[in-house]
Amino acid sequence: MPQLSTRHLLGIKDLTQTDIQLILETATQFKEVINRPIKKVPSLRDITIANVFFENSTRTRLSFELAEKRLSADVVNFSASGSSVKKGETLLDTVNNILAMKVDMIVMRHSSPGAPHYLASRIPANVINAGDGTHEHPTQALLDSFSMREKLGNLAGKRIAIIGDITHSRVALSNIFCLQKQGADVMVCGPTTLIPKHMAALGVRIGHDVREALAWCDVANVLRIQLERQQIKYFPSLREYSLYYGISRQMLDELDRPIVLMHPGPINRGVELTSDAADSPHSIILDQVENGVAVRMAVLYLLAQEK
Amino acid sequence: MPQLSTRHLLGIKDLTQTDIQLILETATQFKEVINRPIKKVPSLRDITIANVFFENSTRTRLSFELAEKRLSADVVNFSASGSSVKKGETLLDTVNNILAMKVDMIVMRHSSPGAPHYLASRIPANVINAGDGTHEHPTQALLDSFSMREKLGNLAGKRIAIIGDITHSRVALSNIFCLQKQGADVMVCGPTTLIPKHMAALGVRIGHDVREALAWCDVANVLRIQLERQQIKYFPSLREYSLYYGISRQMLDELDRPIVLMHPGPINRGVELTSDAADSPHSIILDQVENGVAVRMAVLYLLAQEK
Amino acid sequence: MPQLSTRHLLGIKDLTQTDIQLILETATQFKEVINRPIKKVPSLRDITIANVFFENSTRTRLSFELAEKRLSADVVNFSASGSSVKKGETLLDTVNNILAMKVDMIVMRHSSPGAPHYLASRIPANVINAGDGTHEHPTQALLDSFSMREKLGNLAGKRIAIIGDITHSRVALSNIFCLQKQGADVMVCGPTTLIPKHMAALGVRIGHDVREALAWCDVANVLRIQLERQQIKYFPSLREYSLYYGISRQMLDELDRPIVLMHPGPINRGVELTSDAADSPHSIILDQVENGVAVRMAVLYLLAQEK
Repeated sequence: MPQLSTRHLLGIKDLTQTDIQLILETATQFKEVINRPIKKVPSLRDITIANVFFENSTRTRLSFELAEKRLSADVVNFSASGSSVKKGETLLDTVNNILAMKVDMIVMRHSSPGAPHYLASRIPANVINAGDGTHEHPTQALLDSFSMREKLGNLAGKRIAIIGDITHSRVALSNIFCLQKQGADVMVCGPTTLIPKHMAALGVRIGHDVREALAWCDVANVLRIQLERQQIKYFPSLREYSLYYGISRQMLDELDRPIVLMHPGPINRGVELTSDAADSPHSIILDQVENGVAVRMAVLYLLAQEK
Repeated sequence: MPQLSTRHLLGIKDLTQTDIQLILETATQFKEVINRPIKKVPSLRDITIANVFFENSTRTRLSFELAEKRLSADVVNFSASGSSVKKGETLLDTVNNILAMKVDMIVMRHSSPGAPHYLASRIPANVINAGDGTHEHPTQALLDSFSMREKLGNLAGKRIAIIGDITHSRVALSNIFCLQKQGADVMVCGPTTLIPKHMAALGVRIGHDVREALAWCDVANVLRIQLERQQIKYFPSLREYSLYYGISRQMLDELDRPIVLMHPGPINRGVELTSDAADSPHSIILDQVENGVAVRMAVLYLLAQEK
Repeated sequence: MPQLSTRHLLGIKDLTQTDIQLILETATQFKEVINRPIKKVPSLRDITIANVFFENSTRTRLSFELAEKRLSADVVNFSASGSSVKKGETLLDTVNNILAMKVDMIVMRHSSPGAPHYLASRIPANVINAGDGTHEHPTQALLDSFSMREKLGNLAGKRIAIIGDITHSRVALSNIFCLQKQGADVMVCGPTTLIPKHMAALGVRIGHDVREALAWCDVANVLRIQLERQQIKYFPSLREYSLYYGISRQMLDELDRPIVLMHPGPINRGVELTSDAADSPHSIILDQVENGVAVRMAVLYLLAQEK
């Protein structure tokens, strides 16, 4: 049986092309499973998985939890609120405690970039990064690639524009790595203040005009403006952001070639996308969510073989 | 096999008499199940249910969760706190995301009247209303009827007094619909300020004297004063409310006919009921809680047939 | 089959020596189970357990939850936040409601000493005390004894020093009872302000010099300074506490006999223990955590026979 080159999923940066290929192909099989009337397989029946979320999350935690339950794993949830983290315990002590209870895999979200890497080098369980600060969010990038491939086939040579707040987005960085490893041509597009300087070194195109980006690309992956992080200082006003970078259905319909519209959610309707764009036939936003469960099942299943 | 006329349980208003009959009879069978040493049945083994609570709840959420687990469904819980709702996502987007993860049924509590109806018309999953603002709380009314029938048999012609804060109660409205459809004679009784004007149009008796109500009725369903909603403005003081509308064991013992005492919980002991009333042989308050699990199993089981 | 003398685990005070023996021997078998590739047994397949935590907890709640799931019980979690406790319901009403939903066992943490005893005398379910205020924490003492016995064998005549904040510790009291019933010689050691007067009446040695305690004992069970309870008033400063009562690896290495270092967690590294002490070969801190799951499985399993 083909195997991953790693026993953790910390970031896309560490994956080989073959790893990505294997995960996406395995996910195809799990997507069939979750669309059958009987959505469950006994693959991880004797595996205990802890979802350790030091940052709040709805969709990612729920998606992992469903993936785990459909693989028949035993699941425990741990969130930072109400936990011993508040009592001054170190991250390593917290996780070692969970592991001493014989947990086999840890799915972790943490606000510090590198937190899952730090752990993975110190503990025997498989670690899956469910988002570390503004660094990586590898399962999001994998589900995004899976969703693009469903529409476009092989991504080599395809043009992907990542549009919006690149600076604060772990989704952007993981997507860039994932797409480049598959041979895609990547552009990041946003206001100068929201595109970090190191982007140039990554070999991506850099744009500031959303209409030019849309005219160029096969896929527009539109990032969320994280209102709750008060990034208002990076642009004059939400209204102005929306005026210059918001995407409407009309802008998509007027293009002279088909375009695929993506968004990692949750959408701010009326800010980065108008409602009619989000709900248009160009959009595969809900496919992304569905594929997220299949891709996470694939990752958990493959890592469980790598003890 | 008999079937419901609907694929959602949004309110009692939409149910036929036959629907109510079918749910209550099915619940009788599930009550037997949960009183066996083996309390579980495999009926919903391949069904995933999401409990989506936008308002806090203990007993209702727990009752649904136990009902779901005893039917062998896979259960995920989602609460508004710590969720993307706080990130500005719309209700429909939140629920569509959950559905895209292949959830079959949604049990939802929401502070806005009509929220489950809005969803039910837009999504493919079965929707069960677990309380929408001050509108309906259909499973509470069904478990109340189930509990009354256990004591009194057929409810046609029986006299039910609903006592207390009618204005802010979704329990009152659902009970009125449920009881009237079964041919019962319903009175609402409370201070003028806590009985909404539209009650007259519903064809219920209206009373303001709790002793008269008790003398008249077969069942007194006493509602909770929702202290946490600071309704103190509707009556001069808690002490005064208790003096005029509080029910003691002595008041029940002195009646010249048997009476059944009910309360949806949680009880404010010493406010709407004295402790000796709540714990008296007249009270079936804990039977209501037990029956809640059986009735919810029946609702979930029947709706799962209606894809 | 041997049986416990009780149907609840409220405190170590109520257990006989035979009870303690039986729990620890049963835990040995469950420790084997959780170290097998297949960590689950079907023992409690038809039992529903509610974890009712009125105080926040991570490790204890997680340890119980894993123990329950590995016994194949159905598990529901209930925490005080967002619950009807905030709506003014009494403890007994809250628990009676949970029981009416056919819950067989209640694991309860509560800030009031005696809360589980109060309940156990009034409800039909088995009650397990997971910590009641500063009173008892019986499963912690049992897992501590289990861990000591793994290192030292029979505890009769062994010397155990409990070091630190004895006043605010339920772990200390349960350990004293548990160790004395097994014939161990117990010392409590800490600043005068953190050793309650009633210790003398319990027949334990009392010390104030941590170096003398370490020189005397076979096991040092070091308690946590509960920073979050702002006990700073009991000693001049954390730095001073650490200077007089903090334990370093050097202090342990320099002893002329082997010593076992324990801590119930979470550790304040640099306060009661230096990092090199906590991570030294003397330390069995992570064994304690692992054994916690096995001991709790044993307690749940044995009590489930006592309906």
